[in-house]
Amino acid sequence: MTIRNPADTDGADVFNAGCPSRRALELVADKWSLLVIPALRGGPLRNNELLRRVGGISQKMLTQTLRELERNRLVLRTDHATVPPHVEYELTELGRSLSRVLLAVDRWVEDHHQELGAR
Amino acid sequence: MTIRNPADTDGADVFNAGCPSRRALELVADKWSLLVIPALRGGPLRNNELLRRVGGISQKMLTQTLRELERNRLVLRTDHATVPPHVEYELTELGRSLSRVLLAVDRWVEDHHQELGAR
Repeated sequence: MTIRNPADTDGADVFNAGCPSRRALELVADKWSLLVIPALRGGPLRNNELLRRVGGISQKMLTQTLRELERNRLVLRTDHATVPPHVEYELTELGRSLSRVLLAVDRWVEDHHQELGAR
Repeated sequence: MTIRNPADTDGADVFNAGCPSRRALELVADKWSLLVIPALRGGPLRNNELLRRVGGISQKMLTQTLRELERNRLVLRTDHATVPPHVEYELTELGRSLSRVLLAVDRWVEDHHQELGAR
């Protein structure tokens, strides 16, 4: 078992319910975050492109997820202020960093879902 | 943007709402899965050890999470059938494999939670 020096993370310990990092875990531990963030890794997408890419998400849930990710500095919303409107969403550098670890989760799931026993 | 050959994962695509891998994603996209699985990476633990390790989890939620992980072949429950009872939980090989990608998520959260903007 690897013991990390708590100083590596300014003492953050996600296993401690009182640590502020727990709230960040709750943001990430969400099916739609796990899909929307990796979906944006290829570059900016419009709302309708995201709706198509992230199968099963409703417009309401996509809007809510994007707002939460924007609020947390993971996604940047750019309104090109054109007619017709052209609004794009893209990952910030922080979002790109998170997308790498979340993509690894998505790929694990795709690679191993058949070994899971649940029916 | 990296395009993976669908054959790599038997065609599984977690972005497709109808793909069976989506259900596996829902199992993983859970705060308690993201804590209980990495908490077990050091070896078998008893119920009370897990309760202490995973801050904030209730007995009911721990039991429910462990059952779901057992059902999905990620966790093995061993009852040593002794008096007093000695029951341990440990990761299966599949669970250990998943623990590595989830631990990366936990560490990202610990390392970056201060950069997230949410208050």
